[in-house]
Amino acid sequence: MPATQTTSPTAAAYGDILYDVADRVATITLNRPDRLNAWTQAMEDEMRDALLRAEADDAVRAIVITGAGRGFCAGADMGLLSGAVASQGSAAPREADEATPSDDFDQKFSYMLKIRKPIIAAINGPLAGIGLCMVLFTDLRFMAEGARLTTAFARRGLIAEHGSSWMLPRLIGNMNALDLLFSGRLVDAAEAERLGLVRRLPAEGFLDAVTSYARDLITASSPRSIGVIKQQVHTGMFQSLAEAWNDANRAMEESFHTEDFREGVNHFVEKRAPAFTGR
Amino acid sequence: MPATQTTSPTAAAYGDILYDVADRVATITLNRPDRLNAWTQAMEDEMRDALLRAEADDAVRAIVITGAGRGFCAGADMGLLSGAVASQGSAAPREADEATPSDDFDQKFSYMLKIRKPIIAAINGPLAGIGLCMVLFTDLRFMAEGARLTTAFARRGLIAEHGSSWMLPRLIGNMNALDLLFSGRLVDAAEAERLGLVRRLPAEGFLDAVTSYARDLITASSPRSIGVIKQQVHTGMFQSLAEAWNDANRAMEESFHTEDFREGVNHFVEKRAPAFTGR
Amino acid sequence: MPATQTTSPTAAAYGDILYDVADRVATITLNRPDRLNAWTQAMEDEMRDALLRAEADDAVRAIVITGAGRGFCAGADMGLLSGAVASQGSAAPREADEATPSDDFDQKFSYMLKIRKPIIAAINGPLAGIGLCMVLFTDLRFMAEGARLTTAFARRGLIAEHGSSWMLPRLIGNMNALDLLFSGRLVDAAEAERLGLVRRLPAEGFLDAVTSYARDLITASSPRSIGVIKQQVHTGMFQSLAEAWNDANRAMEESFHTEDFREGVNHFVEKRAPAFTGR
Repeated sequence: MPATQTTSPTAAAYGDILYDVADRVATITLNRPDRLNAWTQAMEDEMRDALLRAEADDAVRAIVITGAGRGFCAGADMGLLSGAVASQGSAAPREADEATPSDDFDQKFSYMLKIRKPIIAAINGPLAGIGLCMVLFTDLRFMAEGARLTTAFARRGLIAEHGSSWMLPRLIGNMNALDLLFSGRLVDAAEAERLGLVRRLPAEGFLDAVTSYARDLITASSPRSIGVIKQQVHTGMFQSLAEAWNDANRAMEESFHTEDFREGVNHFVEKRAPAFTGR
Repeated sequence: MPATQTTSPTAAAYGDILYDVADRVATITLNRPDRLNAWTQAMEDEMRDALLRAEADDAVRAIVITGAGRGFCAGADMGLLSGAVASQGSAAPREADEATPSDDFDQKFSYMLKIRKPIIAAINGPLAGIGLCMVLFTDLRFMAEGARLTTAFARRGLIAEHGSSWMLPRLIGNMNALDLLFSGRLVDAAEAERLGLVRRLPAEGFLDAVTSYARDLITASSPRSIGVIKQQVHTGMFQSLAEAWNDANRAMEESFHTEDFREGVNHFVEKRAPAFTGR
Repeated sequence: MPATQTTSPTAAAYGDILYDVADRVATITLNRPDRLNAWTQAMEDEMRDALLRAEADDAVRAIVITGAGRGFCAGADMGLLSGAVASQGSAAPREADEATPSDDFDQKFSYMLKIRKPIIAAINGPLAGIGLCMVLFTDLRFMAEGARLTTAFARRGLIAEHGSSWMLPRLIGNMNALDLLFSGRLVDAAEAERLGLVRRLPAEGFLDAVTSYARDLITASSPRSIGVIKQQVHTGMFQSLAEAWNDANRAMEESFHTEDFREGVNHFVEKRAPAFTGR
């Protein structure tokens, strides 16, 4: 399959992010480099729009999220927090007041878990607060040597926001999650890797290396398989073993009747590269 | 207690596995070495029979599962998969059609979790697909230097089969499980150890080293204690903390009235090796 | 805020522990050094009393638990176990007979999870059995080079007591928990760190280093934030993601109206050290 280079027709409509598709990988770039890509409501809305666009686009098989300039995301914009202080909380970010959805996969960031394409965070630089919460709901996280991350909340008098108190312990264990959430201390890429939170890559050529990983993945593996597996793993967090097993048996039977299964066996028997269609 | 060497009277009845008992350790060997011990329905049925035999045999205190020749298990026999392709799925492995049991400990491999003796995988060589799924339900996994494992499914257009989407994330975390399941890439023993999936041992003398671990275990520890603890840990996956604690209090009280408790205290006070009876 | 040095007025009332408060850190020292601080019912009752005292004391912001002399805690006092053997179980520790509470946070040690101040174990020497169970319910665990720990139970003919069968797998994974619980083998500080159970520190200056960590924590982070986060993480073990997220949204909104939030933003904007009040 030849490489394709497309530019989203409405990419220009985004203000706080960039969106680009090349060789079946969509890249979402948080794009407020003069503020270390500090989080805004517009950025959040645009990222959701871009993720749903990537999911709907048959030309996209994997999604990479990264930051413009030397940072990934410095957390909530301090102007927002200072405003909340000045107004004694009445100008606080809007989710504090809005009705909260009841579904595990319909929270501010957890909708990313049900997007049926792999979402890969490429943490190129500093990552803090709400940016870290978002990253916890990507499927894979790579971090550049030299980058550091922090939960930050306890140092601002805040709490473990946006699902981080639930997801971080499930990724790195209760003890390490408490350490990072209590202290708000800076964690470098080597420690983040030891904790199992990220995989570390050299800073030089970082985004290219992450994009390469994504390309290898979507070349070697059936996109249909990846989509089903992503749903299996995340749904499985809330299932008994028997429920997950029965779902897997049904999904296995369905897979036996797909083009990708025939191609998956045939390319192996014929000792050639696969050409999966996703059907 | 003197070492005992027994040969199961019906060992000869098995076709795709070997079964042997020596010094209170039962060894099950997947035995299709010319096919890297690729999985068959007969192998599955025989392994279950052998495991239940080992559980029922008072002369057995631990169970080791390994592979004959240079492999552990290459996954489903490719003849089976090619047949499923040729028949457009109608010749697919039978579990896709059968009624699925509702109990967490009564699935294709999860019955291994309730066998009241330690089951130890000795991964001597390549391990893939359904073989890896089986191995996830052993209690301890050792892997020889040089051996590699892969989930394989996504490269065949398949999905995370046989409980792997549920168990693998609980063993190595969601991110690493997604990486291995999405990519189907090869993982060597050093990485598998770093992920917490196995413990690594040198290739030379590998099976002897695993068997030694098993012997040390059943010499130093009460077999009754091991059986109760195995049930506690696996049942605890589905319990609240209060339920698990109350069960532990009842089990502790029961243990105070056993021969193994008296022996466990007496040998320590008398500074001699223990001689547990399992009662 | 000036350092304060206080001595609890009733410290003298404790027999098997010491209790001391300095610079806003309460230190509980298991104090039967001639018996490696083997566990007694009096020690348990006194530790609970001291923890509740520390929680109620506004001058205390973090709690450290350590052992007097060269040990941390050698497990249940062998006299107790030998008595149980001699009486054929009728002189066994009392919890076996008592009514068991139904709440996840109201078990023998799990009440520590709801104390709204960080509890840090400083494992200065040998740790076994019931002492290890207690330590599993602290928030952070540091271990001195040279110290070793063991579950011990299976070597005494006992079972995984006091929540250890539930909590240990959630801290280090099922496989490693089964290994430690089955074998009762000794684990040194390096391995305990690799397993994710503790963080390792040099033996020289060990308690000072742990206390320093605690002081840094309560200086840089809001004590109010720490208390809320501790509750979020431990409660989150039993919640769906949606429940945890909704609770976090409510807690976030509350935090916007606190002194600690204003101080957390203001000290950052003003580039000075924080002076949190905990309100």
